[in-house]
Amino acid sequence: MSDSFFHPVSGFDLPRFAGVPTFMRLPHVPPSHERFKDVDIGLIGVPWDSGTTNRPGPRHGPRQLRDASTMIRAQHQASGIRPFEALKCADLGDVGPNPADIIDSMTRITEFYDTVKAAGITPMTAGGDHLTTLPVLRALAREAPLGMVHFDSHTDLFHSYFGGTMYTHGTPFRRAVEEGLLDPKRVVQIGIRGTMYDSEDRDFARAEGIRLIEIEEFHARGVSDVMQEARAIAGEGATYVSYDIDFVDPTFAPGTGTPEVGGPNSWQALQVCRELAGLDIVGADMVEVSPPFDPSGGTAFLGVSIMFELLCVMAESAAKR
Amino acid sequence: MSDSFFHPVSGFDLPRFAGVPTFMRLPHVPPSHERFKDVDIGLIGVPWDSGTTNRPGPRHGPRQLRDASTMIRAQHQASGIRPFEALKCADLGDVGPNPADIIDSMTRITEFYDTVKAAGITPMTAGGDHLTTLPVLRALAREAPLGMVHFDSHTDLFHSYFGGTMYTHGTPFRRAVEEGLLDPKRVVQIGIRGTMYDSEDRDFARAEGIRLIEIEEFHARGVSDVMQEARAIAGEGATYVSYDIDFVDPTFAPGTGTPEVGGPNSWQALQVCRELAGLDIVGADMVEVSPPFDPSGGTAFLGVSIMFELLCVMAESAAKR
Amino acid sequence: MSDSFFHPVSGFDLPRFAGVPTFMRLPHVPPSHERFKDVDIGLIGVPWDSGTTNRPGPRHGPRQLRDASTMIRAQHQASGIRPFEALKCADLGDVGPNPADIIDSMTRITEFYDTVKAAGITPMTAGGDHLTTLPVLRALAREAPLGMVHFDSHTDLFHSYFGGTMYTHGTPFRRAVEEGLLDPKRVVQIGIRGTMYDSEDRDFARAEGIRLIEIEEFHARGVSDVMQEARAIAGEGATYVSYDIDFVDPTFAPGTGTPEVGGPNSWQALQVCRELAGLDIVGADMVEVSPPFDPSGGTAFLGVSIMFELLCVMAESAAKR
Amino acid sequence: MSDSFFHPVSGFDLPRFAGVPTFMRLPHVPPSHERFKDVDIGLIGVPWDSGTTNRPGPRHGPRQLRDASTMIRAQHQASGIRPFEALKCADLGDVGPNPADIIDSMTRITEFYDTVKAAGITPMTAGGDHLTTLPVLRALAREAPLGMVHFDSHTDLFHSYFGGTMYTHGTPFRRAVEEGLLDPKRVVQIGIRGTMYDSEDRDFARAEGIRLIEIEEFHARGVSDVMQEARAIAGEGATYVSYDIDFVDPTFAPGTGTPEVGGPNSWQALQVCRELAGLDIVGADMVEVSPPFDPSGGTAFLGVSIMFELLCVMAESAAKR
Amino acid sequence: MSDSFFHPVSGFDLPRFAGVPTFMRLPHVPPSHERFKDVDIGLIGVPWDSGTTNRPGPRHGPRQLRDASTMIRAQHQASGIRPFEALKCADLGDVGPNPADIIDSMTRITEFYDTVKAAGITPMTAGGDHLTTLPVLRALAREAPLGMVHFDSHTDLFHSYFGGTMYTHGTPFRRAVEEGLLDPKRVVQIGIRGTMYDSEDRDFARAEGIRLIEIEEFHARGVSDVMQEARAIAGEGATYVSYDIDFVDPTFAPGTGTPEVGGPNSWQALQVCRELAGLDIVGADMVEVSPPFDPSGGTAFLGVSIMFELLCVMAESAAKR
Amino acid sequence: MSDSFFHPVSGFDLPRFAGVPTFMRLPHVPPSHERFKDVDIGLIGVPWDSGTTNRPGPRHGPRQLRDASTMIRAQHQASGIRPFEALKCADLGDVGPNPADIIDSMTRITEFYDTVKAAGITPMTAGGDHLTTLPVLRALAREAPLGMVHFDSHTDLFHSYFGGTMYTHGTPFRRAVEEGLLDPKRVVQIGIRGTMYDSEDRDFARAEGIRLIEIEEFHARGVSDVMQEARAIAGEGATYVSYDIDFVDPTFAPGTGTPEVGGPNSWQALQVCRELAGLDIVGADMVEVSPPFDPSGGTAFLGVSIMFELLCVMAESAAKR
Repeated sequence: MSDSFFHPVSGFDLPRFAGVPTFMRLPHVPPSHERFKDVDIGLIGVPWDSGTTNRPGPRHGPRQLRDASTMIRAQHQASGIRPFEALKCADLGDVGPNPADIIDSMTRITEFYDTVKAAGITPMTAGGDHLTTLPVLRALAREAPLGMVHFDSHTDLFHSYFGGTMYTHGTPFRRAVEEGLLDPKRVVQIGIRGTMYDSEDRDFARAEGIRLIEIEEFHARGVSDVMQEARAIAGEGATYVSYDIDFVDPTFAPGTGTPEVGGPNSWQALQVCRELAGLDIVGADMVEVSPPFDPSGGTAFLGVSIMFELLCVMAESAAKR
Repeated sequence: MSDSFFHPVSGFDLPRFAGVPTFMRLPHVPPSHERFKDVDIGLIGVPWDSGTTNRPGPRHGPRQLRDASTMIRAQHQASGIRPFEALKCADLGDVGPNPADIIDSMTRITEFYDTVKAAGITPMTAGGDHLTTLPVLRALAREAPLGMVHFDSHTDLFHSYFGGTMYTHGTPFRRAVEEGLLDPKRVVQIGIRGTMYDSEDRDFARAEGIRLIEIEEFHARGVSDVMQEARAIAGEGATYVSYDIDFVDPTFAPGTGTPEVGGPNSWQALQVCRELAGLDIVGADMVEVSPPFDPSGGTAFLGVSIMFELLCVMAESAAKR
Repeated sequence: MSDSFFHPVSGFDLPRFAGVPTFMRLPHVPPSHERFKDVDIGLIGVPWDSGTTNRPGPRHGPRQLRDASTMIRAQHQASGIRPFEALKCADLGDVGPNPADIIDSMTRITEFYDTVKAAGITPMTAGGDHLTTLPVLRALAREAPLGMVHFDSHTDLFHSYFGGTMYTHGTPFRRAVEEGLLDPKRVVQIGIRGTMYDSEDRDFARAEGIRLIEIEEFHARGVSDVMQEARAIAGEGATYVSYDIDFVDPTFAPGTGTPEVGGPNSWQALQVCRELAGLDIVGADMVEVSPPFDPSGGTAFLGVSIMFELLCVMAESAAKR
Repeated sequence: MSDSFFHPVSGFDLPRFAGVPTFMRLPHVPPSHERFKDVDIGLIGVPWDSGTTNRPGPRHGPRQLRDASTMIRAQHQASGIRPFEALKCADLGDVGPNPADIIDSMTRITEFYDTVKAAGITPMTAGGDHLTTLPVLRALAREAPLGMVHFDSHTDLFHSYFGGTMYTHGTPFRRAVEEGLLDPKRVVQIGIRGTMYDSEDRDFARAEGIRLIEIEEFHARGVSDVMQEARAIAGEGATYVSYDIDFVDPTFAPGTGTPEVGGPNSWQALQVCRELAGLDIVGADMVEVSPPFDPSGGTAFLGVSIMFELLCVMAESAAKR
Repeated sequence: MSDSFFHPVSGFDLPRFAGVPTFMRLPHVPPSHERFKDVDIGLIGVPWDSGTTNRPGPRHGPRQLRDASTMIRAQHQASGIRPFEALKCADLGDVGPNPADIIDSMTRITEFYDTVKAAGITPMTAGGDHLTTLPVLRALAREAPLGMVHFDSHTDLFHSYFGGTMYTHGTPFRRAVEEGLLDPKRVVQIGIRGTMYDSEDRDFARAEGIRLIEIEEFHARGVSDVMQEARAIAGEGATYVSYDIDFVDPTFAPGTGTPEVGGPNSWQALQVCRELAGLDIVGADMVEVSPPFDPSGGTAFLGVSIMFELLCVMAESAAKR
Repeated sequence: MSDSFFHPVSGFDLPRFAGVPTFMRLPHVPPSHERFKDVDIGLIGVPWDSGTTNRPGPRHGPRQLRDASTMIRAQHQASGIRPFEALKCADLGDVGPNPADIIDSMTRITEFYDTVKAAGITPMTAGGDHLTTLPVLRALAREAPLGMVHFDSHTDLFHSYFGGTMYTHGTPFRRAVEEGLLDPKRVVQIGIRGTMYDSEDRDFARAEGIRLIEIEEFHARGVSDVMQEARAIAGEGATYVSYDIDFVDPTFAPGTGTPEVGGPNSWQALQVCRELAGLDIVGADMVEVSPPFDPSGGTAFLGVSIMFELLCVMAESAAKR
């Protein structure tokens, strides 16, 4: 029987526009809270975008995602899963970054996730730009490199920017591979598209054995076929899911800083999550939601709808353990 | 030969941005007008959203729909139908609700539609939230329960909200079935999706024999196959068409209060209307268009484009009678 | 020495865009919380707009006000007051309304404020439309009628709307006087303007002895002179402060449903609060902030800036007791 | 006793967001209407902006002004005037321009106003860009040149643009003086400001005896003093009032194509109208409201608030005749 | 080896939000520039919308397209083409129109394109409304009529508007056929849809042998099949590509004045360009981008993404010559 | 006689919405340009906001300011000054920052301004957040500390943020005083307001002799009186003018990241510039314009209107030398 402390507030009891907005109307359980150690899945905000090389804004992502998440209800339509009953979920609050110091911020993030991991909590992160994922992986992959299913329109595998700057939102996975946080043979990047500077990132991927599924292949093969391969690549080992909202076509997700046209629609955006069922997901994130570029909140609502899909897959997976 | 009094003003004569905006630039023919009794199809605004449990706004729907409708021209591209010549159409004006009294408002609406029906006019309603449909059905189904083709992302079949409140935009069809206004065996709901509170509405549908076509099935089967079944369910009897704009994916129709991602696109939104050809449509509505959530008017323009498709189907149907 | 539990989070420690947004980054202390009884001033959201006769939206007010309030810091510039150290302030959460039942909602609100008052907490409300104030006054004025300083462009003193509807945002103070919640001789309404239906509300005010300071007089006399009179009218007795954001010119506060042009600017909007110093304020509210009409949040930021000014005046007043 | 046919619909009977939007909820009385000849003041839309040299949009002005005007009530607060009872006012509809032919459009406009004038109706125009005023003056000043009180940030007195183009929104009053439609000695332009191409327009004004009151003088002297002079300049003869919304500071009226910062605020925007009392106003306009640059409608609401002020002054004036 | 003078600035060197925005960060090479004669493909802005019969705005198109184009990088993902190295591309600046004189503007445009053509430069135009294409064709088709692949939701083949006005954005191709600028047998129009005034334009197309592929056929056959036919129609002769952004569904491209729902998505918008490979393209345009209707710039970004696709096809074609 | 190379393009010749947008339509003269050494005043963009502790965006400032600046004409209304004829002005382009490295960026900026200063050019900077001013001052004050007139709602005199971070937009003038770039006795800060963290910055100002004119004093004394004192403080020595757009009330300038309500209006925003006449201005900046918070561009237009006022004062000053 599920623990009612961890149940979200129902819109039948309190209208969905009411109340202090936490992720999915879950209880706010920061590390200092007495129930922290009981949490199964922790939703964490990382309001940070210092790695952004073009248009900033994702530092405001967690707040808008929290706001939009109050529209999420308790049960998945297709599968019938009720994740908040299957697992003890909570809003762990935000990691406080230092907006004017990238290295300091990464240290703060890794420390927070060390605490989360030590408590046995599986983190689901609401970013933040994509550099966020690097300090998270540093905490989660301390013992062994992880596999990764990565939805994005960019590889984020570049060596450096602006004459040698190593930490930007275009480099996290180059660093992660270099630091041994990811097993490149178990990494698949899906949805890659857009005009290119050059092929330096693709060359690195090829050399390391990272599988790139570009948008042409995605559209030609369809979600089901592509995701079957993705599951095979990630395999049975511990896997991280990183979901950059710019994977989705910018018409469906305009609230992001580096859009690329021609991407998947909102239905495909959900479908790819459902196709993750069966993987051993040890962490997930939703990054690059940039509220200044979509004040309407539509992008954030798509973002939290995706987060709910991921939660359901993680709940299903946990139920099998 | 068609009656020129009922012809809309052409954009070739008066630019489409000019003039007092009535629905589709038709003449304004309120019940007191001498030509009222000649009208075949009456476009009616119901600017009302007191049944809204989440984000209000549809009370502003009729005005924005009227504004957008001045972009509609006289002829359907694919079928060649010219509905305003085939039928005498007019803007009957708005039903004046009481924004602070739900029961009073429902009475006012039913009375207006009684008048419309008594004059032999087929009503096409521009809502308003979905509770609007209940008092409309009370007028239209006085003699016998109707069949219904219902496009929506929600069933609107809930029993009650907030500890016993019976009249909200989430309950109209529960009430309509209870009141004998709808024949549940001739009701089909298409496009249902989104996270769920629980299964109470689905259980009711199943028990009553209402057919639900959820979005997964819709995407898998396609418009043509789904609509063939829908026509079979509605059958040859008198049928109402209720079109909640949140049936469409919120990227295509952001101006609504309870969006659910992953829905049909704008082309499918039109196609489902065309597939209604042959039904005996005794009334139709376009509800839940909420201008505050789409000041650009794009949602309203999609809404009136759908209304035009419905008009053409109704004209075709009338021509056969 | 002040109680650090009640200190807001500093933007020097956690960036102001980070964290779960509570009012002014104060602790969230609902009635069930163990520190509830220690609170001096409770900030309360009433997300409700069922009394709105024109354009809805204030039900979303509390959330946007919370969001904007994270920009507020700890100290008043001119007076040097640090209200969160002078008084124990907390976010008491939202009162859950029933969006589809006005009477039920008013009952819920009054019950919540009864609890607040019983705990010795002075409430500062973030509405909600102006009907909100009526159920609040029912709790606060149980023992004796209150005086009131009322900033608004409307009197909200009408008898009824739409053929007899008694509870709308245009009638709360008519009801409050009738119910003996306000002492009309100690009520002053400031900023009244805009086109009028008729003089029925003004006639009532005159008959009861309520003082109206219309905008022409306000602009002619200036803030200081007007407020000196306002303080004299409210006198030394228990006084409520009701601040409708539409008091301010709609250019400065576009996010509201019934704007009237020609009002005070943002500097005057703050000044009038400072001039309340010395009154015995037993409750205050900021109402009619309507986010759909100002998604930028500028109106909400002005709203919370005003709330901070009121807090400082209340803190100063409390310090003298 | 006033004629109820010409009374606007009250918001107490029908909510203000409801109904087909005509100017100020007045009856729609085009020239073909049987009551046309009874109208005292006709509100006319001229949806036209072909004379715009910079950013277009005013062709959409009349529709947005009609929409906003449904917020206007029946009585003036300060004066108590009820213009719709004092005078028979009606919405005469729009003049249909030819968006792709300036000369043809001007002909159409002049013809419409000839009809209006022949019926003894005083026109109040909702533009349209400022070139609109030229064809209007051609109808109104057939017998004798008019005086004019002109609120604007620009003189609109230039000779020509782009190498000899004579008809733009920067030249109407140069043409009007040349054509003998205005008596330059009875013309005053108030609020002139902004960076200048050169002094060619000012030189013309000086040579012709047109009085320019630049913004520096306006701010230094104040509304009352400036308007006293304006009334003296216009004198007792027939006078036209032309109100370009860009007279007002663009923060208060962003919806316009050629803004100039540092202008009057919204209170002053109303005050200058009240100070027109006593003039013999034979026509008035509100031009350059450009909805694409203010989708919120705030500019339009200010525009119709000003139109209401002008109506009240005209009603007062008519009452004295 | 490519000429570095014509290389765009890389986002790796200068962030993409920095710098004076030229098309695709190319050098600004107006006709007076010493390198003008070396240019292969010239990107030209035509900020003009005087032919617009409904909602204006495309005069602002070039500036927003330039701004958005700074997000375009150097290499095409699927083909690997680096067009700025394959061809010498430059921003030739804008043609200065006369906003208040259609005929004068058309003369100015044709003269500019005569100069461009005389220098052996292939023009790619950023409009401007669709009337822009007529004066461009007058320069490009001096020797012989061209074939044309035309993406649009409208045929733009009407005879005239408003009682005989011959030059509007609804008539350019009627004029072009009449003037012998296009060979109607080599013209294909793709994506045609929306409600119709009448069939006058279709009748003309049929009579002249212009091939119309309406949206129903487009959706039924798919991009690849449709474009195979399009290539066959255009054949091996000199061909112009005219791309009206309203070809794309208005959800993906809201920034346009005459939207029609139910169109292609953004992926198809790109695909149709790729399928032009092999044609002899002597000029291309992107028209009807209207910034006031999409201040977010998303439409413009789609527009420049399409322009980049066209550039790559032209580069490939040039490489074969 | 003035040098026509440096004349801006007139809107009478080329419409103001046309052309590649440079600052005030001046020629683009980067350091590599042959006329660089002839420039008197160089307008420079610094698209950088890495020092922003709250809401980012000013990195997009220069582009929006350039866009808005095409609305500026050639002559000052009140003074008649034609600055582009009095002085040789040019757009020097942007300094390319490193968005992910604060120290590297500051080095790049100082180097650019060293070049500018070496060429004898007086720089007028379009930021960028307020940290921009520090590296600019490092170039300009190499020989001796400068005086400064500083318009702002914040002192930007804090010691550090987030536990020791020394370079943020809240610390530039603390650093500048510490580094001997400013003579604190010749520094005046005007418009200071808003809630405060604490008094640490004010204490520093007092200790160093920096004069703070808070908003209460500003409103009480008026522009003329305050600016007389400001001129006296700056004296006859070399003076820098730093204008943070958040000096202006956020209703007039919403496009900024750290707004504080109750500030000066747009007229006062211009007036304070005019009152700088007579000072020896060796550099000026307009910072903290943040386009994502005002996509309308109204803030940017106010920003460039202020820049034009400053230019005129500098031209007048130069004329006297």
